[in-house]
Amino acid sequence: MLEPNFEKGKGLIPAIVQDYSNGEVLMLAYMNREAWLKTLETGKATYWSRSRNSLWIKGETSGHFQVVKEITIDCDEDTVLLKVEQTGAACHTGYRSCFYRRITAGKVEIVSERLVNPEDVYK
Amino acid sequence: MLEPNFEKGKGLIPAIVQDYSNGEVLMLAYMNREAWLKTLETGKATYWSRSRNSLWIKGETSGHFQVVKEITIDCDEDTVLLKVEQTGAACHTGYRSCFYRRITAGKVEIVSERLVNPEDVYK
Repeated sequence: MLEPNFEKGKGLIPAIVQDYSNGEVLMLAYMNREAWLKTLETGKATYWSRSRNSLWIKGETSGHFQVVKEITIDCDEDTVLLKVEQTGAACHTGYRSCFYRRITAGKVEIVSERLVNPEDVYK
Repeated sequence: MLEPNFEKGKGLIPAIVQDYSNGEVLMLAYMNREAWLKTLETGKATYWSRSRNSLWIKGETSGHFQVVKEITIDCDEDTVLLKVEQTGAACHTGYRSCFYRRITAGKVEIVSERLVNPEDVYK
Protein backbone atom coordinates (compact mmCIF):
# COMPACT_ATOMS: atom_id res chain seq x y z
CA MET A 1 0.00 0.00 0.00
CA LEU A 2 1.17 3.53 -0.83
CA GLU A 3 2.49 5.11 2.34
CA PRO A 4 4.07 8.48 3.05
CA ASN A 5 7.84 8.62 3.20
CA PHE A 6 8.35 9.43 6.87
CA GLU A 7 12.14 9.30 6.65
CA LYS A 8 12.37 12.50 4.60
CA GLY A 9 11.07 14.61 7.47
CA LYS A 10 12.97 12.71 10.14
CA GLY A 11 9.93 10.65 11.05
CA LEU A 12 7.27 13.37 10.66
CA ILE A 13 5.23 14.56 7.70
CA PRO A 14 2.89 17.56 7.54
CA ALA A 15 -0.82 16.80 7.22
CA ILE A 16 -3.02 19.55 5.78
CA VAL A 17 -6.55 19.39 7.12
CA GLN A 18 -9.39 20.64 4.97
CA ASP A 19 -13.13 20.82 5.69
CA TYR A 20 -14.81 18.18 3.54
CA SER A 21 -18.02 20.15 3.18
CA ASN A 22 -16.76 23.56 2.07
CA GLY A 23 -13.03 23.26 1.29
CA GLU A 24 -11.88 25.59 4.10
CA VAL A 25 -8.33 24.79 5.23
CA LEU A 26 -8.63 24.22 8.97
CA MET A 27 -5.14 23.45 10.28
CA LEU A 28 -1.81 21.79 9.67
CA ALA A 29 -0.49 19.10 11.97
CA TYR A 30 2.23 16.46 11.87
CA MET A 31 2.04 12.68 11.67
CA ASN A 32 4.54 9.97 12.41
CA ARG A 33 3.96 6.44 11.09
CA GLU A 34 2.07 5.46 14.23
CA ALA A 35 -0.33 8.42 13.86
CA TRP A 36 -0.78 7.60 10.17
CA LEU A 37 -1.67 3.96 10.85
CA LYS A 38 -3.97 4.95 13.72
CA THR A 39 -5.79 7.41 11.45
CA LEU A 40 -6.32 4.72 8.80
CA GLU A 41 -7.43 2.18 11.40
CA THR A 42 -9.85 4.40 13.35
CA GLY A 43 -11.02 6.90 10.72
CA LYS A 44 -10.36 9.67 13.26
CA ALA A 45 -7.54 12.10 12.56
CA THR A 46 -4.60 11.33 14.81
CA TYR A 47 -1.38 13.33 14.87
CA TRP A 48 1.94 13.54 16.63
CA SER A 49 2.13 16.47 18.99
CA ARG A 50 5.57 18.04 18.64
CA SER A 51 5.08 20.11 21.79
CA ARG A 52 3.86 17.25 24.00
CA ASN A 53 5.90 14.56 22.23
CA SER A 54 3.00 12.17 22.18
CA LEU A 55 0.28 10.70 20.00
CA TRP A 56 -2.62 13.11 19.74
CA ILE A 57 -6.13 12.02 18.82
CA LYS A 58 -7.59 15.32 17.66
CA GLY A 59 -10.62 16.06 19.84
CA GLU A 60 -9.72 13.77 22.73
CA THR A 61 -9.68 16.75 25.12
CA SER A 62 -12.00 19.21 23.37
CA GLY A 63 -14.49 16.79 21.82
CA HIS A 64 -13.73 18.43 18.47
CA PHE A 65 -12.98 15.23 16.57
CA GLN A 66 -12.19 15.02 12.88
CA VAL A 67 -13.78 12.18 10.94
CA VAL A 68 -11.60 11.48 7.91
CA LYS A 69 -13.56 11.37 4.66
CA GLU A 70 -10.68 11.36 2.14
CA ILE A 71 -6.90 11.14 2.13
CA THR A 72 -4.71 12.23 -0.75
CA ILE A 73 -0.92 12.15 -0.93
CA ASP A 74 1.34 14.52 -2.82
CA CYS A 75 3.72 13.84 -5.69
CA ASP A 76 6.77 13.63 -3.42
CA GLU A 77 4.96 11.42 -0.92
CA ASP A 78 6.01 13.61 1.97
CA THR A 79 2.74 15.48 2.65
CA VAL A 80 -0.84 14.29 3.03
CA LEU A 81 -4.13 16.12 2.71
CA LEU A 82 -7.04 15.01 4.89
CA LYS A 83 -10.58 16.03 4.08
CA VAL A 84 -12.51 15.81 7.31
CA GLU A 85 -15.86 16.29 8.92
CA GLN A 86 -14.96 18.71 11.69
CA THR A 87 -16.93 18.77 14.91
CA GLY A 88 -16.83 22.26 16.46
CA ALA A 89 -13.68 24.34 16.16
CA ALA A 90 -10.47 23.00 14.63
CA CYS A 91 -8.36 25.62 16.42
CA HIS A 92 -7.48 25.49 20.10
CA THR A 93 -8.18 29.24 20.26
CA GLY A 94 -11.84 28.54 19.50
CA TYR A 95 -11.85 29.63 15.88
CA ARG A 96 -13.24 27.31 13.24
CA SER A 97 -9.90 27.43 11.37
CA CYS A 98 -6.37 27.99 12.68
CA PHE A 99 -5.90 30.35 9.73
CA TYR A 100 -8.14 33.06 11.16
CA ARG A 101 -5.83 36.00 10.56
CA ARG A 102 -5.36 37.58 7.17
CA ILE A 103 -2.18 39.53 6.58
CA THR A 104 -2.49 42.50 4.31
CA ALA A 105 -0.14 45.44 3.82
CA GLY A 106 0.68 46.45 7.33
CA LYS A 107 -2.39 45.07 9.08
CA VAL A 108 -4.04 41.91 10.36
CA GLU A 109 -7.74 41.10 9.96
CA ILE A 110 -9.78 38.33 11.55
CA VAL A 111 -11.38 36.23 8.80
CA SER A 112 -12.69 33.15 10.60
CA GLU A 113 -15.49 32.66 13.07
CA ARG A 114 -14.85 32.13 16.76
CA LEU A 115 -17.14 29.26 17.67
CA VAL A 116 -16.25 28.57 21.27
CA ASN A 117 -14.43 30.05 24.22
CA PRO A 118 -11.36 27.88 24.70
CA GLU A 119 -11.71 28.18 28.47
CA ASP A 120 -14.97 26.26 28.19
CA VAL A 121 -13.33 23.45 26.25
CA TYR A 122 -9.87 22.91 27.73
CA LYS A 123 -10.33 22.60 31.46
CA MET B 1 3.95 43.62 11.10
CA LEU B 2 2.87 40.09 11.98
CA GLU B 3 5.46 37.70 10.58
CA PRO B 4 5.81 33.93 10.76
CA ASN B 5 8.13 32.53 13.39
CA PHE B 6 10.85 31.04 11.22
CA GLU B 7 12.98 29.97 14.16
CA LYS B 8 10.58 27.20 15.20
CA GLY B 9 11.19 25.22 12.03
CA LYS B 10 14.92 25.96 11.93
CA GLY B 11 14.45 28.75 9.43
CA LEU B 12 11.68 27.17 7.32
CA ILE B 13 7.90 27.17 7.61
CA PRO B 14 5.39 25.19 5.54
CA ALA B 15 3.20 27.16 3.15
CA ILE B 16 -0.08 25.55 2.09
CA VAL B 17 -1.15 26.67 -1.36
CA GLN B 18 -4.83 26.77 -2.22
CA ASP B 19 -6.57 27.73 -5.44
CA TYR B 20 -8.27 31.08 -4.86
CA SER B 21 -11.10 30.35 -7.27
CA ASN B 22 -12.28 26.92 -6.12
CA GLY B 23 -10.54 26.08 -2.84
CA GLU B 24 -8.57 23.11 -4.21
CA VAL B 25 -5.37 22.52 -2.24
CA LEU B 26 -2.63 22.59 -4.85
CA MET B 27 0.65 21.94 -3.05
CA LEU B 28 2.74 22.49 0.04
CA ALA B 29 6.11 24.20 -0.11
CA TYR B 30 8.54 25.77 2.35
CA MET B 31 9.53 29.37 2.92
CA ASN B 32 12.46 30.96 4.68
CA ARG B 33 12.32 34.62 5.64
CA GLU B 34 13.81 35.71 2.32
CA ALA B 35 11.13 33.80 0.38
CA TRP B 36 8.43 35.28 2.62
CA LEU B 37 9.60 38.85 2.06
CA LYS B 38 10.04 38.27 -1.67
CA THR B 39 6.46 36.91 -1.87
CA LEU B 40 5.09 40.00 -0.09
CA GLU B 41 7.19 42.32 -2.25
CA THR B 42 6.42 40.78 -5.65
CA GLY B 43 2.99 39.23 -5.12
CA LYS B 44 4.31 36.06 -6.76
CA ALA B 45 4.66 32.95 -4.59
CA THR B 46 8.33 32.36 -3.81
CA TYR B 47 9.62 29.41 -1.81
CA TRP B 48 12.82 27.85 -0.57
CA SER B 49 13.70 24.70 -2.45
CA ARG B 50 14.97 22.16 0.06
CA SER B 51 16.30 19.92 -2.72
CA ARG B 52 18.12 22.66 -4.63
CA ASN B 53 18.93 24.74 -1.56
CA SER B 54 17.97 27.94 -3.28
CA LEU B 55 15.23 30.54 -3.59
CA TRP B 56 12.53 29.29 -5.93
CA ILE B 57 10.13 31.62 -7.71
CA LYS B 58 7.31 29.20 -8.51
CA GLY B 59 6.86 29.19 -12.29
CA GLU B 60 10.27 30.59 -13.21
CA THR B 61 11.05 27.42 -15.22
CA SER B 62 7.56 26.18 -16.13
CA GLY B 63 5.75 29.50 -16.57
CA HIS B 64 3.22 28.22 -14.02
CA PHE B 65 3.35 31.23 -11.72
CA GLN B 66 1.17 31.73 -8.66
CA VAL B 67 -0.25 35.21 -8.11
CA VAL B 68 -0.94 35.59 -4.40
CA LYS B 69 -4.46 36.83 -3.64
CA GLU B 70 -4.58 36.27 0.14
CA ILE B 71 -2.26 35.23 2.95
CA THR B 72 -3.44 33.91 6.30
CA ILE B 73 -1.30 32.76 9.20
CA ASP B 74 -2.12 30.09 11.74
CA CYS B 75 -2.58 30.38 15.49
CA ASP B 76 0.98 29.22 16.25
CA GLU B 77 2.46 31.51 13.60
CA ASP B 78 4.48 28.66 12.13
CA THR B 79 2.41 27.91 9.00
CA VAL B 80 0.96 30.15 6.30
CA LEU B 81 -1.84 29.59 3.83
CA LEU B 82 -1.61 31.24 0.42
CA LYS B 83 -4.64 31.59 -1.79
CA VAL B 84 -3.35 31.94 -5.32
CA GLU B 85 -4.33 32.36 -8.90
CA GLN B 86 -2.55 29.39 -10.45
CA THR B 87 -1.41 29.49 -14.05
CA GLY B 88 -1.39 25.98 -15.54
CA ALA B 89 -0.41 23.06 -13.35
CA ALA B 90 0.83 23.46 -9.78
CA CYS B 91 2.53 20.06 -9.82
CA HIS B 92 5.78 19.32 -11.60
CA THR B 93 4.23 16.03 -12.79
CA GLY B 94 1.74 18.01 -14.87
CA TYR B 95 -1.27 17.56 -12.62
CA ARG B 96 -3.27 20.58 -11.54
CA SER B 97 -2.69 19.64 -7.88
CA CYS B 98 0.19 17.76 -6.24
CA PHE B 99 -2.48 15.85 -4.30
CA TYR B 100 -3.65 13.85 -7.31
CA ARG B 101 -3.71 10.44 -5.65
CA ARG B 102 -6.42 9.35 -3.28
CA ILE B 103 -5.62 6.56 -0.87
CA THR B 104 -8.45 4.22 -0.05
CA ALA B 105 -8.35 0.78 1.56
CA GLY B 106 -5.61 -0.97 -0.35
CA LYS B 107 -5.74 1.09 -3.53
CA VAL B 108 -4.74 4.37 -5.12
CA GLU B 109 -6.96 6.40 -7.43
CA ILE B 110 -6.10 9.43 -9.56
CA VAL B 111 -8.38 12.32 -8.58
CA SER B 112 -6.81 15.36 -10.28
CA GLU B 113 -6.52 16.37 -13.89
CA ARG B 114 -3.25 16.08 -15.79
CA LEU B 115 -3.00 19.37 -17.63
CA VAL B 116 0.40 19.18 -19.26
CA ASN B 117 3.13 16.74 -20.12
CA PRO B 118 6.05 17.67 -17.86
CA GLU B 119 8.49 16.93 -20.69
CA ASP B 120 6.98 19.83 -22.59
CA VAL B 121 7.48 22.20 -19.67
CA TYR B 122 10.79 21.33 -18.04
CA LYS B 123 13.38 21.18 -20.83
